[in-house]
Amino acid sequence: MTGERDTRTGAVMAAIRKKVSNRALASGDRLPSIRSFATTMGVSPSTVVEAYDRLAAEGLIRARRGSGFYVVGTASSPMTLAQAGPRQDRAVDPFWVSRQSLDADPAVLKPGCGWLPADWMPTEPLRRAVRTLARGEDATFTDYGGTRGSPALRRLLLGRFAEEGIDASPEQLLLTGSGTQATDLVCRFLLSPGDTVLIDDPCYFNFQALLRAHRVRIVGVPYTPSGPDIAAYETALATERPRLYITNSALHNPTGASLSPQTAHRLLRAAAAHDLTIVEDDIFADFEPAPSPRLAVLDGLDRVIRIGSFSKTLSASIRCGYIAARADWIEGLLDLQVATSFGGPSPVAAELIASVLAEGGYRKHMDELRRRLDRARRETAARLEPLGIRPWLMPRGGFYLWCRLPDGLDSAAIARKAVEQDVVLAPGNVFSVSQTAAAFLRFNVAQSNDPRVLAVLRQAMASLPAE
Amino acid sequence: MTGERDTRTGAVMAAIRKKVSNRALASGDRLPSIRSFATTMGVSPSTVVEAYDRLAAEGLIRARRGSGFYVVGTASSPMTLAQAGPRQDRAVDPFWVSRQSLDADPAVLKPGCGWLPADWMPTEPLRRAVRTLARGEDATFTDYGGTRGSPALRRLLLGRFAEEGIDASPEQLLLTGSGTQATDLVCRFLLSPGDTVLIDDPCYFNFQALLRAHRVRIVGVPYTPSGPDIAAYETALATERPRLYITNSALHNPTGASLSPQTAHRLLRAAAAHDLTIVEDDIFADFEPAPSPRLAVLDGLDRVIRIGSFSKTLSASIRCGYIAARADWIEGLLDLQVATSFGGPSPVAAELIASVLAEGGYRKHMDELRRRLDRARRETAARLEPLGIRPWLMPRGGFYLWCRLPDGLDSAAIARKAVEQDVVLAPGNVFSVSQTAAAFLRFNVAQSNDPRVLAVLRQAMASLPAE
Repeated sequence: MTGERDTRTGAVMAAIRKKVSNRALASGDRLPSIRSFATTMGVSPSTVVEAYDRLAAEGLIRARRGSGFYVVGTASSPMTLAQAGPRQDRAVDPFWVSRQSLDADPAVLKPGCGWLPADWMPTEPLRRAVRTLARGEDATFTDYGGTRGSPALRRLLLGRFAEEGIDASPEQLLLTGSGTQATDLVCRFLLSPGDTVLIDDPCYFNFQALLRAHRVRIVGVPYTPSGPDIAAYETALATERPRLYITNSALHNPTGASLSPQTAHRLLRAAAAHDLTIVEDDIFADFEPAPSPRLAVLDGLDRVIRIGSFSKTLSASIRCGYIAARADWIEGLLDLQVATSFGGPSPVAAELIASVLAEGGYRKHMDELRRRLDRARRETAARLEPLGIRPWLMPRGGFYLWCRLPDGLDSAAIARKAVEQDVVLAPGNVFSVSQTAAAFLRFNVAQSNDPRVLAVLRQAMASLPAE
Repeated sequence: MTGERDTRTGAVMAAIRKKVSNRALASGDRLPSIRSFATTMGVSPSTVVEAYDRLAAEGLIRARRGSGFYVVGTASSPMTLAQAGPRQDRAVDPFWVSRQSLDADPAVLKPGCGWLPADWMPTEPLRRAVRTLARGEDATFTDYGGTRGSPALRRLLLGRFAEEGIDASPEQLLLTGSGTQATDLVCRFLLSPGDTVLIDDPCYFNFQALLRAHRVRIVGVPYTPSGPDIAAYETALATERPRLYITNSALHNPTGASLSPQTAHRLLRAAAAHDLTIVEDDIFADFEPAPSPRLAVLDGLDRVIRIGSFSKTLSASIRCGYIAARADWIEGLLDLQVATSFGGPSPVAAELIASVLAEGGYRKHMDELRRRLDRARRETAARLEPLGIRPWLMPRGGFYLWCRLPDGLDSAAIARKAVEQDVVLAPGNVFSVSQTAAAFLRFNVAQSNDPRVLAVLRQAMASLPAE
């Protein structure tokens, strides 16, 4: 075998190994056929045969009589979404920001995290709700609760939907353990391994992590200041045949942009033409000064599934999310939630949330919070300006600023430097499926006012050669 | 085509339709090859070809050039674990008992449910814990908490493990949203669609529902009074090559039996020989008068994964479960939990549980609860005796009695009659993958003391012809 041939065989082997390690191919899956993979890799079929034989000799794959090659499953190769290892050595992938932020000790600053500091949250209303709970019914403390979740909270939510113009019945609403669990349930319900899912590029990094767990193919659509690039979206629908599109319409994470009415209308029109279902993750709704267009409202919960939670506005500890969708889908989702969580969300959590939402204090808290965030957003932008770090746009609400770095700086390299100084940043590429956001950082304006954030950032930037 | 041939084609079509409806074949899955399915069905290959062609004409499946037939995915056929429909019309399947019990209004009696009445739970210690919480740190109310969950609760659990003889490190323990979510995470981590999983027959009905969501093949092993039938288990390991075995070692649900030391040892020996992983769901541990053999203890958390929760002893509303396993597996499970739930269990829930467990009242409560259950178990058995309903064995603890009906009576028919009278029973076949437990009912002795339970049961039995 010539050296060149050897290299080609090695490339095919590496491509398959990568598919196994990133779960594009799972234990028991059939490998691409010799002929098709030869075309994909631009090599001869005999090179692929050679590569598969060598991988089989290594034990990674196995031939089955007359039906091709399959990935071998062993106890030592379970599903691994990210490389395990010491925390700071891990690659800066979608898990990096989550785990760095969630597991940071209190001394660590977290301008890259996705939540508000404890003292920005409605702690007094929450304490009042907890004291009320201590005097409540035994069953609230001890029972599983109904499969759809607390009737009080569901009534409150249906009332809010009605104010927006969504006329949903009680059968169209299901409470879940959290917003993430809501998205996960919907994915389980609608997707099969190998399906294609459309996401925004950039988008909330955990969508990628979640979709990887579902073993689906992810396709990104570039995001613009008025929503996804509609031409790219229409092309993707026609050529990639996605089953699902997951997005935030209002105060999109990480950019803070909101959908324009024209884009919203075209998104839905194309979705109908291609029988696409849309998951609209609406967790930032209450941060808007006034409601922007919502797909769920325009569509009336026909092919749009609304997902929400209270983790950003009320509490990430007392967790509860919800799904609003077609009644027949809710019925199926409900069974799936029983099978995988046994029952709905904690009655204690749902009662606490309902009790805070029902009292007058919550609206006042949100009014005050929006004013405070407006101020923090302006201040953060002003502080970043001298470093040459500029917002891609100025969001109308919420706590994110999606900022471009000076030319040639790599945000992942900066984030790696900063974490050594106990500052967790959110580098652009963890949000980007195409890995084209290396020049961006996402700032949480409520977590960026400590002068050390700026000092560490400046130092990290200075230590790196502009490329 | 002859009529007989037509019938055979129809049988093949029906078999495939059933595989699609029960998710043995999911959207995008490849159908069995013509030749192999002809062998399975005992028909000629041309009959299978005919059946596949007709199903393709109906749009259920689709041929792909040169690579066989595949199940078609459409927006109108999402994943449906059970048939939707009005509640009382649903088939008596594993979801039936869950939903009937969880969604029953307070007037309904639930001798078939899987939890204790609210006034049997430690409500006073829980209320004290809630009052303490109301004076706690802001962050406990508002933050996501660390990815492994409350350090206080993890320390408590590791201390209990040490008392049992399990020397686990903090890296071997992960808190989860619930015991069911713990099992679900482990399945996601270790299983791929099409894998084979071993369960006890009978076993906790939700294991079947959960495994269906994972699209795996389920194989049952008959359960005996000292654990699974060890010969059948060894044969299944050799012939079915299961990836996982899920079981309760102590106070097995539904039978109340516990594993003998000899069976425990042989289970582990065969597991090692066949590289099988075992999930030991230990949620009834605290109901035992004295600890019986545990696989996790014998094995030292090498190939055994321990799962537990506090839903049965402390609260099903303040939910939290855990997984104890190999440290490298916990690392992967942790990422999976971040991806699918964002973070660990609610810090509020974990703190409340830790606070109740740490105070002296919990042990006293459990001592009292065990005495109360012993009494209720004897009384329930005595009340059922005149109806000819007899326990399969007398469990040493817990709240279940697995009882055999008089000859010829079908427990599902009785359950359907009883639910019309607002009594939810748990008929045997929802626990049995082989559907061989029609003569059994599972009683929750703490939910069976209302005289109406017996009256309705007697009436339902009398209204059915013995077959």
